[in-house]
Formats: sequence, C-alpha cells, structure tokens
Amino acid sequence: MQLINDEFYMGLALDMAERALGQTGINPVVGAVVVKNGAVIGIGTHLRRGTAHAEVHALNMAGAEAENSTVYVSLEPCSHYGMTPPCSQRLIQEKVKRVVVACEDPNPSVAGRGIEMLRESGIEVEVGVLRERAVKLNRQFNKYITTRLPYITLKTASTLDGKIASKSGDSKWISNDAAREMVHTLRHQHQAILVGVGTVIADDPQLTTRLSVPGLSPTRIIVDSALKIFENSQVLTDGKAPTILLTTSRAAQDRIDGLREQGIEIMICGDGPEVDLELAMRLLGEREIASILVEGGGRINGSMLQHHLVDELMVFIAPKLIGGLESPGSFVFDGYERMRDSIVLKDMEVELIGDNICVKGKPMYSV
Amino acid sequence: MQLINDEFYMGLALDMAERALGQTGINPVVGAVVVKNGAVIGIGTHLRRGTAHAEVHALNMAGAEAENSTVYVSLEPCSHYGMTPPCSQRLIQEKVKRVVVACEDPNPSVAGRGIEMLRESGIEVEVGVLRERAVKLNRQFNKYITTRLPYITLKTASTLDGKIASKSGDSKWISNDAAREMVHTLRHQHQAILVGVGTVIADDPQLTTRLSVPGLSPTRIIVDSALKIFENSQVLTDGKAPTILLTTSRAAQDRIDGLREQGIEIMICGDGPEVDLELAMRLLGEREIASILVEGGGRINGSMLQHHLVDELMVFIAPKLIGGLESPGSFVFDGYERMRDSIVLKDMEVELIGDNICVKGKPMYSV
Repeated sequence: MQLINDEFYMGLALDMAERALGQTGINPVVGAVVVKNGAVIGIGTHLRRGTAHAEVHALNMAGAEAENSTVYVSLEPCSHYGMTPPCSQRLIQEKVKRVVVACEDPNPSVAGRGIEMLRESGIEVEVGVLRERAVKLNRQFNKYITTRLPYITLKTASTLDGKIASKSGDSKWISNDAAREMVHTLRHQHQAILVGVGTVIADDPQLTTRLSVPGLSPTRIIVDSALKIFENSQVLTDGKAPTILLTTSRAAQDRIDGLREQGIEIMICGDGPEVDLELAMRLLGEREIASILVEGGGRINGSMLQHHLVDELMVFIAPKLIGGLESPGSFVFDGYERMRDSIVLKDMEVELIGDNICVKGKPMYSV
Repeated sequence: MQLINDEFYMGLALDMAERALGQTGINPVVGAVVVKNGAVIGIGTHLRRGTAHAEVHALNMAGAEAENSTVYVSLEPCSHYGMTPPCSQRLIQEKVKRVVVACEDPNPSVAGRGIEMLRESGIEVEVGVLRERAVKLNRQFNKYITTRLPYITLKTASTLDGKIASKSGDSKWISNDAAREMVHTLRHQHQAILVGVGTVIADDPQLTTRLSVPGLSPTRIIVDSALKIFENSQVLTDGKAPTILLTTSRAAQDRIDGLREQGIEIMICGDGPEVDLELAMRLLGEREIASILVEGGGRINGSMLQHHLVDELMVFIAPKLIGGLESPGSFVFDGYERMRDSIVLKDMEVELIGDNICVKGKPMYSV
C-alpha cells in the first residue's frame, strides 16, 4: 500500500529520471515534481544535454501556480550558467516555498551552492530524501564530473567453467535471449562500447543497440594497437554510430591517414606495443565520453581489471560447461600469488535471468 | 536489471498516473510518454479535471519533434469533446507514427473510438501493454463512468477478535501509526469519506487528510437518518472540506433548513426510518462523487455489505484481544444461515504493516 509523503513524490522524480538514462550524454538524469495544496501541479525530466533541466519543464507545466509550492528534485538544482541558466535562480524567481533534494550535485561548479542560493533566499530546503537511490542512479555522472574519466562497466558472459568461447572459438550463444536483451539495454545506457580488435576481426559485429523498441547506439571504441582492423568491417562502414580506434604511435601513418579520411576517429595512446589504457581513458574523458561498456574478450577484460580501470563488473553465467584447455577465459591477466590479494566484488547483487545468473558488483582492488 | 521495451515506457506512464490518484475528481488518472529515435522527448500526466490531458502535456514538451514518434499512453486517448478537445485528433495532427495504449477507455463516449480514429488515420496502434496494472489503477473511474455510481472502498480496523472498540467505547487506537497513516493516504485517494452519525457524536472527528505532507481532504458524508448531529460538530463548522448529510424525509424540516443555511448539503434518501443507502449512492453519483471511502462503525459497514454496495474491502487487523460481549464488532448485520453463503474476498492481498495485518479484496456476494 502507498503512503503519501516526501518519498512518494521523490520516487516519481527518480522514476522519470531513470527512464532517461542513456540519453543525456555527460549530463546527469534528473526528475522534478511540483506539488501544491496536496496535488501534483507539474512534472519534468531532463531529456538531453543543452535542453531544459527537469525543474524548468516542471515549473513550466505548473505555470503561475508554482508560487508557494514544494518542488521535489532528484539532484541539487544547478547554481551556474552552463548551457542553460541556473535552476536555483528560476526556483527563487517562481517564489516556491520548499525544495526537497535527493542528493547534492557533485559537479564542482555546483557542489552545494545551488542549495545555498535557495536557502539564502529564504526557501526551505531539505536534502537526502531517497539519497541512496539517487546517488546510484547517477553513478556514471558522479564519477565523470569529479574526475573527467569515463565510468567503466565491464560486462562478460561465460560458462560455468569461466569460458567465453569453445576451443574452436565458437561463442554463439553462451547467454540466453533475455540476458542478451539486457546487454542491449546496457548499451543504450552507456555513451560508448569498447572491444578489442580481435573481436572485430573474428565476428565483424555491429556493436549497436538492438531491442524490441529503438534504442540509442553507443559510440564504438576499438582497441587496435597496430591498426589490424579490416577496412570493410561493419563498425567502419555502416555509419550506424561513430567509431573511435585506440592505437599506438607504432601504427603505420598511411593506415592512420586512410582511416581518418574515411571519417574514423583515431586516438594515439602511447608508444606501444600495447594501447596505454589509462591514457586512453583520459583522452576519452576529454572527448566527453562519460561512460563506457566494455564487452571485450578475455585480454581486454584482464587488462582493464589489472589497471584498476573497472568501476562496475557484470558477469552473466550460463549453466554450461564447455571445457578445452585452449578455450578462452573471460579474464586473461597475470593474476595474483595469494588468494587474499584477489579482486573482490563489493555491493554484490545476484539476479536470476531464466537459467542465467547475473553477478554484479564494484571491484575492490587490494594490490 | 532493466529491459528497454514497450513495458519500460508504459511503466513510466503508469508511475506518473499513479502519483496523481485522488486529484483528478471523476476523471481517470493517465500518463503519457513520447519516445523517438530511442529517447524520451516528452512526458505528461493528467493533473486535474478540466485541464490538459496527459497526451497534451507530453506532446507540448516534445514540440515539433513529435512527428514520427511513438506515444505511450496508459488509457485510450479520448475521441470526444469533453472539457478539452479530443486527444486522438491531436495525436493525428502531430503525425505521430505509433501509439501504444495500456487499456481501452470504458467511457461510453470513447470505448474504442479513440483507437479507431487513430487507426483510420494510418497510425499504428497497439493495445494491452501493462493492461492489468492500468485497469486496476483506474478501478474507481471504470466503475463510475459505466454506472454513474461511486466506487466504494470500505476500510475497517479491528482487533483479532473482530472488535472496533472496547465495551466502554474506547477505540484510540486499535491500529499502529503506519496503518493509520495509510488510511490518510486512502482519504487523499477518494473523493469522499462516509461515516455514521454515531461516530460524529462519539468522537467529533475532522475526517480530513493529515499526512507528513499536505494531502487532499475528501468531502465528508454523514449518514444521519434523523439529523441528530450536533450543530457544533467539527465536520459542520471547520470549513476544511464540504460536508453532505444523508437523511430521510422523517427529519425535521426546520433542522434541514437550518443546516442548509449553514452551508451544509442535505440529501433526502427515502422515507426512513433508515437512510436508503442504494438511493444515496445513486444521488451521490449524480453529484459527481465517483469514489467513497467508508470508515463507518459496525452498523454502517454491515448495511453497506448487506446491500452489496462495497467494491473493495480493506481490513486492518491489530494483534490485540479486547473481549466484552457488548464491545462493538466491525460488521453488524443479520448474517447468513450457511457458511457457504458468506461473503468471500476475491483477489485477496495480505500485507504486513509492522504488527498490523492488512487484508484487501473484492467482496463476492453469493446471496
């Protein structure tokens, strides 16, 4: 049964924000609800970077009635002129009475100043209603805005014996249909997808988002230290999403020039022989890629982990045993001598998806 | 984990509709989401009777981008000129490509014609996504619009031995705080509340909605066959919500005149000695009361049940035993000879609220 209280309205603000995840670029997702005299008089959500913030949509719907209302907003109203004017000022101008905020905006240009502005103008402000849900929802934004590094989700699907293909390289399919559909939802919710060139050569994948309804396809990032990619690969030719190749200064200059003429973006990440993944993440952050879904093979997965670059791990396990000493494993890296040095998942969640198991968590690196 | 599909967007439409329950009067609650190229471009919800429908708010937010979009709407778009122009026409005019509808509008002025209009204009229409949730959400509206009778929810709170007070009449409190707060949420979500005059004389209640945030107070309906109510009762004097007295033609004319002069509405429901509850429901329906929460004593509860007027029953049970032969029971009525003739709850739900048990269901009358 329901209970009408601050959480009731903040829950709606978060429901609206959640549905926009993946479409706001480097911006956070935010929802807002305007309530007056016991009734909702306006709702809004931030839809796309550069367009109106949630509060603006909601206040527009409320119109002149906004005066003396309570506004629930899932993230601290902004205090700065970004692509749009500060929402705190708009709230003050509308003479709202009370603002309920789920969590502070970690953006250094805001970071409490939005709340301060409201309070200074005499508006009653309450902070922390459904905070945990709000912080989790914007975890990609929260990392990016404070570090300018992309938030990395690493997804892999393996058999019960930790293999991502058979010894002959067959991998279609390990996961069931529902799990694969969830992965396409993850693609929609990330700005970019990253794989190794081995995957591109072996499978010629599109790396787009394919669901029962249209979704947003991520920018495709291919780790290719020597630019071995085939020129007719779908990711280079289908035009379905931008493609970025990460390579090293060892790559042949004529290859680089040729690919750039084809409209492919190339980032030189170190002198080789391997792509410097830490540098790559910094460059991708500068290019305003705030979130990346890694769907690499075992080597990419292993390197990302070993460099402590993974923020969130998502392992789909199918109840299958494929065997084979040469069958590729899901995480290929040097490994640790002692079990107590292993990477451990924090905030672990387990979900059953039909006969597949999804294990999620935040890797904690002890070494 | 989430899955982006039709249900994902319809779920948001329903989340928005749900939060507006109680504020749309005899109108249904409806949410709408406009989606194009894999992104949400507009959201809306119906806020108050006579103001814009959900589709209009959502299309306004989408603006010119609405062309070729998919619109999710939790109730069939209207096809008739009511207080606002038909939404089907607006959708056609905006050249949307696809409309996904949760359920048909049972309103005889619509009843499939909205969907028909859309289809005739070449728009692809899909009906039935999250139908069950949508139908349940508007169960008050669904009954009222097809019968012009109010939807009746009967709530009672009793001890484990079925008592609503001690033998001396003490009833404060049987339920715990959380259960009582839920009852105030129910008040917000109904247009009217109904009690017997006995309750008013004994407790002088306000019958308003009191929550941690402001709520809407229902119209107060008092069953008072002989107009025994005290003139200084809070429901007559506090002006916090309209009050309607249900009485009979046996009531003294000077009492009727006096109360009417005081601004109290009086409905004559039959010649007595008891208020004709069936007639009362018809008159209240004509007066555009579409939903009533009955919080009567045992006699009102019993009469409502015996006349098969209750659509939904909600019994809060506290783990207490009060005893006493004269302690009033929660349902006072003649009763049936045989157990198999008893009223049985269909679609029963049980919820634990701390140490209180809430049993909900739809009474099925066999006799």
